[in-house]
Amino acid sequence: MERSRPHLVVIGGGFAGLWCARALASAAIEITLVDRANHHLFQPLLYQVATAGLSAGDIAAPLRHILSGQRNVTVRLGEVVGIDAAAQRVSLADGMTLAYDHLLVASGATHAYFGHDEWAAHAPGLKTLDDAMTLRRRILLAFEQAENANDDAGRDAWLTFAVVGAGPTGVELAGTLAEIARHTLKNEFRRIDPARARVQLIEAGPRVLSSFPPALSDKAAAQLQRLGVQVLTGSAVQHIDADGYTRGGERVRAKTVLWAAGVAASPLGAMLGAPLDRAGRVQVQPDLSVPAVPNVFVAGDLATLTQANDKPVPGVAPAAKQMGVHVATLIRARLAGRSDNTPFVYRDWGNMATIGRMAAVVDMPGGLKFSGAMAWWFWLAAHVFFLIGFRNRLVVLMNWGWAYTTYARHARVVFGSGGPTHDLAQSAPQQTQQR
Amino acid sequence: MERSRPHLVVIGGGFAGLWCARALASAAIEITLVDRANHHLFQPLLYQVATAGLSAGDIAAPLRHILSGQRNVTVRLGEVVGIDAAAQRVSLADGMTLAYDHLLVASGATHAYFGHDEWAAHAPGLKTLDDAMTLRRRILLAFEQAENANDDAGRDAWLTFAVVGAGPTGVELAGTLAEIARHTLKNEFRRIDPARARVQLIEAGPRVLSSFPPALSDKAAAQLQRLGVQVLTGSAVQHIDADGYTRGGERVRAKTVLWAAGVAASPLGAMLGAPLDRAGRVQVQPDLSVPAVPNVFVAGDLATLTQANDKPVPGVAPAAKQMGVHVATLIRARLAGRSDNTPFVYRDWGNMATIGRMAAVVDMPGGLKFSGAMAWWFWLAAHVFFLIGFRNRLVVLMNWGWAYTTYARHARVVFGSGGPTHDLAQSAPQQTQQR
Repeated sequence: MERSRPHLVVIGGGFAGLWCARALASAAIEITLVDRANHHLFQPLLYQVATAGLSAGDIAAPLRHILSGQRNVTVRLGEVVGIDAAAQRVSLADGMTLAYDHLLVASGATHAYFGHDEWAAHAPGLKTLDDAMTLRRRILLAFEQAENANDDAGRDAWLTFAVVGAGPTGVELAGTLAEIARHTLKNEFRRIDPARARVQLIEAGPRVLSSFPPALSDKAAAQLQRLGVQVLTGSAVQHIDADGYTRGGERVRAKTVLWAAGVAASPLGAMLGAPLDRAGRVQVQPDLSVPAVPNVFVAGDLATLTQANDKPVPGVAPAAKQMGVHVATLIRARLAGRSDNTPFVYRDWGNMATIGRMAAVVDMPGGLKFSGAMAWWFWLAAHVFFLIGFRNRLVVLMNWGWAYTTYARHARVVFGSGGPTHDLAQSAPQQTQQR
Repeated sequence: MERSRPHLVVIGGGFAGLWCARALASAAIEITLVDRANHHLFQPLLYQVATAGLSAGDIAAPLRHILSGQRNVTVRLGEVVGIDAAAQRVSLADGMTLAYDHLLVASGATHAYFGHDEWAAHAPGLKTLDDAMTLRRRILLAFEQAENANDDAGRDAWLTFAVVGAGPTGVELAGTLAEIARHTLKNEFRRIDPARARVQLIEAGPRVLSSFPPALSDKAAAQLQRLGVQVLTGSAVQHIDADGYTRGGERVRAKTVLWAAGVAASPLGAMLGAPLDRAGRVQVQPDLSVPAVPNVFVAGDLATLTQANDKPVPGVAPAAKQMGVHVATLIRARLAGRSDNTPFVYRDWGNMATIGRMAAVVDMPGGLKFSGAMAWWFWLAAHVFFLIGFRNRLVVLMNWGWAYTTYARHARVVFGSGGPTHDLAQSAPQQTQQR
């Protein structure tokens, strides 16, 4: 590359990082986009991969492919392990370092267990494709274990699914789980009735989807209950292990507990010498730069910012995209010799969450709220539209059209991490069944 | 289930086992189909998953779903660890046992390393979805490693791909690898030219596709060379390690070696007290039953049989299906009180292998042979037609149509087994790169 041009390093190929890089396509700057995955992930639909409705390839595209036409971008597969803001240098796990003139840290967030990291093994979260495959395996194998179980207690434990956290992801998971149990697996088992599965959605707060107006939370809860989900709000889980969880002093046997509660920012935020909030997010300046380090920006889920209107910027995909584009605008100004510190203003296009088949809630700016089938179609259209790449959109639409008419979930294959029998041999009861 | 009816246990949900179970849909018999995977795999297209052209869900369907409408079948996820032909009992890894009146062992084969099991870690084979994901990860990350390499030697080693074994799978892998390097990854890297990758196809025997007539082997070799594959026949690999292989005394640095050579039958064959061939396949009676054990049958890749016409039954999907149906016919006769020992006769509909984009060879009975584009379309039509499930066919067609027009491979996402950076951190050179 021409060393004459300044060098921007972007850490993270999520919505913030990718949109920033794209917005600088025509700028006189060299960009290196570093990510530890080879793909950009359309996270809003990750729960569909976890519940076998979509394949990994349907919601992920190789970063190289997305950016192949943009000659000023070099995609670098690697894991950032250090940031030296004084030396303007980023170091990677493989021992390489990258010197930068401008830096965008957009490495996002992962799930947190509120200091109970020992729960992670028993209650996997959902942030990456690997996570999605783990959840898919756990969910599908639980029904297999129930079919193979010899005692009612064991069977019931395998047929009890608890989702912890009633934010959008938790609501999506719980709603889809209920759908799978009641419709997708119908007639497929001989010794159990999957429809008897209990799906519980646990929320410490007073209501589901707390980022929505209370009226929509009530609608969402009602729609969840119609799908067969037990909505348990108002108290948090106290303990989770391989056999179940404890809540409000009550012990519940549940072999499958899924985690959709806490969020912890990427550890890279702590390397910037900037103030962090409790979740480890970087408290950025109004223009998204790091206090006292004007050539370093933070965007996406790793940044926390309260706007002039006292509203915090939500941790959603549209906000991440807008932040990425905002940073690109400021950098372009600096390339032109101007110092632009325009504060970031989140443009709210509305907030929506899906619950299940024909069930969703939509909260539009200006007070327009609606739910149910119309909200679901609205949600579907928006998400398919925003999926990267024409092909994906088409296939996703097809899969959903198919799933909608048949309830089938085409990606219901279990693989990875030792495979089903590995898990089975470990966890199935050691006894004999006479036929 | 009604204990009055006889019980057939089918081990393996591949082509042989699944087709046998389906052929007994209307029979007065209870069937338990045991498989350690939850899905039936359309193995002929597994190489497409390994090379990121298709997603796992495109070529696999849950056994429960396929058989959900057949009420006399119970699908059992589990791994068979013992067969007691005298007691007519099968034992599973989870401690359960299944008593049977009739047994079909169709647990297939896996890859073998000719006594060099230490090669397995360096040269993965391709039999399961897990294998396919491992190959996909190795292939895609090799190009990433080459992009990150700092010395020419390392770069060349990462850009050298060796496929060992020139049977249909080896030919398919080598041809597709050449296609990926020359077309799919075009313009996506900044420091390497993927088209410079070396793809080698190594065969100990004198020609590729030895199960085809020599004329077609020559055509196949020519088409492979046109795609840019180095075809190296006439001598076997002597050694394989993490850095490459040795052949004919010559050491070749190749970071990616894929195994498509040896086949070893499932260990279950050895539990039947029947004679085995060198690959561990069961030498069955002409009617596919086990010598001296008339109520136990073996079908598919686990069985070896030379027909009356002195031709061995080939280890291909159509043969496995026909064997499964044949066993079903004999069992149905026995249910009717007749003892039917009709010998199995393989109905040869032709033999085909694909090489790459618009390149294939077809060998039809009656001496009709053709190759090239026409053979490829023939191959495509046949394989899409035989894929289980309308939806899969449609999506596979779409993906191929898309791939054909754009060379894109939509499933190019890397996940599983620690993920890319895990591999990267382990294998990338520890040095510093100044930008």
